[in-house]
Amino acid sequence: MESETVPAVLPLNLHKYSNRVILKTILDRDDGGLGLIGQRVVIGGWVKSSKEFKKERPAVAAPADGDGVGDTGPKDKDVTCVEILQSRIPFIRSLIKALGRSHSPAASRDKLEPAVVVPKPPLPSISILQVSDGSCVATLQVLIESSLAPPSKVLPTGTCILVDGELTQSSLQGKQVIEVKVEKVLHIGTVDSEKYPLSKKRLPLNMLRDCSHFRPRTTTVASVMRIRSGLDFTTHRFFENHGFLSVEVPIMTITDCEGFSEKFQVSTLFNKADKKGEPGAAENVGGVSLDVIKAAAREKSNIVEELKRTESNREALAAAIRDLQKTNELAAQLEARENLKSKNSIKDDKSKLPEDFFPRSTYLTVSGRLHLESYACSLGNVYSFGPRFRANRAESQRNVAEMWTVDMEMAFSELKDAMSCADDFFIFLCKSVLENCSEDMKFVIKRMDNASINRLKSVISTSSSERISYTEALDVLKKVTDKSFETKLEWGTALTTEHLSYLADEMYKRPVIVYNHPKEVKPFYVRLNDDGRTVASFDMVVPKVGTLISGSQNEERFNVLSARIKELGLAGEQYEWYLDLRRHGTVKHSGFSFSFDLMVLFTTGLTDVRDVIPFPRSYGKAAN
Amino acid sequence: MESETVPAVLPLNLHKYSNRVILKTILDRDDGGLGLIGQRVVIGGWVKSSKEFKKERPAVAAPADGDGVGDTGPKDKDVTCVEILQSRIPFIRSLIKALGRSHSPAASRDKLEPAVVVPKPPLPSISILQVSDGSCVATLQVLIESSLAPPSKVLPTGTCILVDGELTQSSLQGKQVIEVKVEKVLHIGTVDSEKYPLSKKRLPLNMLRDCSHFRPRTTTVASVMRIRSGLDFTTHRFFENHGFLSVEVPIMTITDCEGFSEKFQVSTLFNKADKKGEPGAAENVGGVSLDVIKAAAREKSNIVEELKRTESNREALAAAIRDLQKTNELAAQLEARENLKSKNSIKDDKSKLPEDFFPRSTYLTVSGRLHLESYACSLGNVYSFGPRFRANRAESQRNVAEMWTVDMEMAFSELKDAMSCADDFFIFLCKSVLENCSEDMKFVIKRMDNASINRLKSVISTSSSERISYTEALDVLKKVTDKSFETKLEWGTALTTEHLSYLADEMYKRPVIVYNHPKEVKPFYVRLNDDGRTVASFDMVVPKVGTLISGSQNEERFNVLSARIKELGLAGEQYEWYLDLRRHGTVKHSGFSFSFDLMVLFTTGLTDVRDVIPFPRSYGKAAN
Repeated sequence: MESETVPAVLPLNLHKYSNRVILKTILDRDDGGLGLIGQRVVIGGWVKSSKEFKKERPAVAAPADGDGVGDTGPKDKDVTCVEILQSRIPFIRSLIKALGRSHSPAASRDKLEPAVVVPKPPLPSISILQVSDGSCVATLQVLIESSLAPPSKVLPTGTCILVDGELTQSSLQGKQVIEVKVEKVLHIGTVDSEKYPLSKKRLPLNMLRDCSHFRPRTTTVASVMRIRSGLDFTTHRFFENHGFLSVEVPIMTITDCEGFSEKFQVSTLFNKADKKGEPGAAENVGGVSLDVIKAAAREKSNIVEELKRTESNREALAAAIRDLQKTNELAAQLEARENLKSKNSIKDDKSKLPEDFFPRSTYLTVSGRLHLESYACSLGNVYSFGPRFRANRAESQRNVAEMWTVDMEMAFSELKDAMSCADDFFIFLCKSVLENCSEDMKFVIKRMDNASINRLKSVISTSSSERISYTEALDVLKKVTDKSFETKLEWGTALTTEHLSYLADEMYKRPVIVYNHPKEVKPFYVRLNDDGRTVASFDMVVPKVGTLISGSQNEERFNVLSARIKELGLAGEQYEWYLDLRRHGTVKHSGFSFSFDLMVLFTTGLTDVRDVIPFPRSYGKAAN
Repeated sequence: MESETVPAVLPLNLHKYSNRVILKTILDRDDGGLGLIGQRVVIGGWVKSSKEFKKERPAVAAPADGDGVGDTGPKDKDVTCVEILQSRIPFIRSLIKALGRSHSPAASRDKLEPAVVVPKPPLPSISILQVSDGSCVATLQVLIESSLAPPSKVLPTGTCILVDGELTQSSLQGKQVIEVKVEKVLHIGTVDSEKYPLSKKRLPLNMLRDCSHFRPRTTTVASVMRIRSGLDFTTHRFFENHGFLSVEVPIMTITDCEGFSEKFQVSTLFNKADKKGEPGAAENVGGVSLDVIKAAAREKSNIVEELKRTESNREALAAAIRDLQKTNELAAQLEARENLKSKNSIKDDKSKLPEDFFPRSTYLTVSGRLHLESYACSLGNVYSFGPRFRANRAESQRNVAEMWTVDMEMAFSELKDAMSCADDFFIFLCKSVLENCSEDMKFVIKRMDNASINRLKSVISTSSSERISYTEALDVLKKVTDKSFETKLEWGTALTTEHLSYLADEMYKRPVIVYNHPKEVKPFYVRLNDDGRTVASFDMVVPKVGTLISGSQNEERFNVLSARIKELGLAGEQYEWYLDLRRHGTVKHSGFSFSFDLMVLFTTGLTDVRDVIPFPRSYGKAAN
């Protein structure tokens, strides 16, 4: 027993919570899976592309498609013969011979019912599927005989299959080294090709946005999302490595982090019936009939006056006055009803308290930094990875309404510390993508932007960004002669995208940190520098994407911060808790906000952030 | 030069983004820091407790507190002499002698101004501070001579200090092995003890909720938050280890995951002026003066009618009619103005489109599972860690409006797989807390619930929960004689907290998974079992906390799901995209939602979820 030989093939890791083998564990092996040949596997996934191989019936015509066996799925129209290497023909012939045998039940049925004119059974065929389970870029070639599953059911792009079969050396021409010869079909999830939006090949990314629930089935979006997930894990790893604690900042808040943000308000007082096309919409607008009545009352009042003025007919006057009175009564009744309605509507809506869930206007957070300070000023170094919201209606490739952000804050640290941390974090992420997502990166750059990988490599070749103060940046940009900027360069105004991208893309060709901005262009909480004009802020601008990280040393001096809040006319009461942190045990601290979604954009070379966010939300768009 | 001796003490790791040493790296060493004696360190933190050691002035009376040197901080009233080990007295004497010397500048000032009657300078003293930087439970003892910093400034609890000094063996009685003898004070963040809410010792947790921005400065909340952060990292590690991808599901959504949830609506149409006590509140309610005018118009119309009826005075009638007309004109003008206002208010508010940010009613997500399915049905195994929202007004120790949840979904998997994964995940988390958060756990159980650690140990001693079907659970509970339940046990109704906690706390005394519930008590998307009455759902109930994980195999059959949506009368159009996943390439899949905040509750033994969430949001409460 102890001399039992080691099996010739390595065991496959089954997925722990499924009976299938994850394709990545087969396809990402250095040997392309060759070492696994002979193993029986259950694999599942979705058909990315397919072909059908049919044996021609030399003399007799046969139905062109479908095999007639329980085929309720769509007819398969576009299948074509696979291209076969001449040298492989004998192997394929033997396969077809085998298929002919396995198709015998249908043949014997023909024999059992000789009296009925039955159309000849369709030719046996092999469905050759390229299957992806989303775990990696590569697809596994899967061969299913038509006797096991009707080709018309399994061939359409997007079909889901779960099959049991043997891993064999690939019998067909192509990149595939191995394939699965299916012995048992465990599940088929069919596709209605007419309606399936991904039936067409290579939809452009902007068209895919209209089916955000399907687009991760495309190879490009799948790769992007795997890279995104890798960046996600690496984010947590970086902060854990550096002794940070993770803190979940609140999403619903009364505190406006920047003082003037465009925010989403949160309430339970809206109800289901307030949008066009939804039941009950516009029910309480009303008032038209009251208006009509009142107009009539005015008209009648005019008639009374006219009758009076002309002193024409006392009978007519009396009638007119009676009429006016009736109209006024009606108006009064209607008005009372309207008022009641309107009051109820106000009650359901706003102003009357304590009806709403929260007693004060509550918004979705635009940044977690202020709340993080509370934890930095007690636990030291903290970060928070979560969604942040801005109700920005301007269409933009870099901003949507809901974006995931890494906010971090460090006690006992200054501007330079936050800048160093930003550099390290950025480099750490770039390195991790190159190391852990190489197959996905290779695919994405082929489709998108060839320069992406080089940009990543260039980042990790240095230890920090180019650093330049706002004032220096302004001087440098003023001297630029090879480009004219649309926005005038003037000290005290924000540098715009064109300026920043010139610095990162044209001038330094690498990430640039611009620091010490005029206080006017940064939020109230950024620490005032000794010059009284600038604040301890920084923006890290990266090529192609623009500002990726915005950070600052925040004002720790109570008096300075308090004066700044008053100076800007911000509603002070919402910041009382924030000022408290300076009243008691204040400390120097700095931090930054890192736009995670833009990092995915930078990494992948895609150009629109809506293509790298699973379900993007922007003005007018929240489809699911 | 090459023969330079190796320093006797180990080098300390400076924090990379600060010039301070993290206290954990000193205090969590096995030798308690003894091996570091002699090292010069910069350390920062907040004073947890303090004492002042004063040398008595034998004959002459001296001012009791303050040193008069730039002391604008609060007076220090409660300081007492430290208890000194008799054996340590000689050492303390030498310290005091040294302090006398270092206080000489003040003494020499006395000599320079002999003509003025100057009160004797305060006695030199040592401020003995227990300082925490939030990195660990233990505090570092810090000794600051009064010549370096006024005791009144550094002694109050909550004071922030950044100091430079030498690590020495502790000179005082107590648990401390080492201490820092300060040579330079770099920063003091004072506290106004009168106003600082944490000046009082040991505030109960429910009182601390009113100062959520300060409470991480208490040892208990700090420990809880470090454990929470540990669970956070471990969550990501578990899913990464098992090949899951992280997917950020949308927060703002039109899809109601459960069909009937109490939700928060999101809008940009509210404005700042809609809550009591906020500027501009109730401005547009108005209408009162128009009402008055209209009442007057009716009154005047009545007068006209009366005059007409009595035929008394034509002059009077004419005047009355003129008056009526004027009043009606005024009413018309006011009304026009009101209408304009009202239209604007409607415009700012609702109904008229496309004014709001999103065209359809949009809510904060109650669960990420439906959106995750889209990614599971393309990428395989996915999870999402994020905030979920329920506008539940009922006060509860287990639920608040905003809770962080781990949703996960696996393609090609069934109910049993999701249950196995839930077991493994739960055990993995319990293990990690015992391994990585032992000091914090020791502290927390001392303060809170001594049984917590044993509960964790009992979990990791088994490989899975007790599993029992809903029907079996009902039978078992019906046989219970030692407890009478308030809610009647009836097949088809949900088991309540008392039933579930009886199962987990009394009967099995370990986590229990109840599965296969009647379809009536679970959401529409849970897969219908073959019996037609139950669905493939499960709840993992853990002792003390209740339901921690809810999961299910979701309905993959289009017809069954579609019928279920109709049967429940759910607004179908919002689920079209979700049905799409069954129309094209459907697959069996299962997953669960894990209440992260309740896991922190289970781990720490605390009883109210508001004490383990950084900034909890509940009905009427969103203070910052």
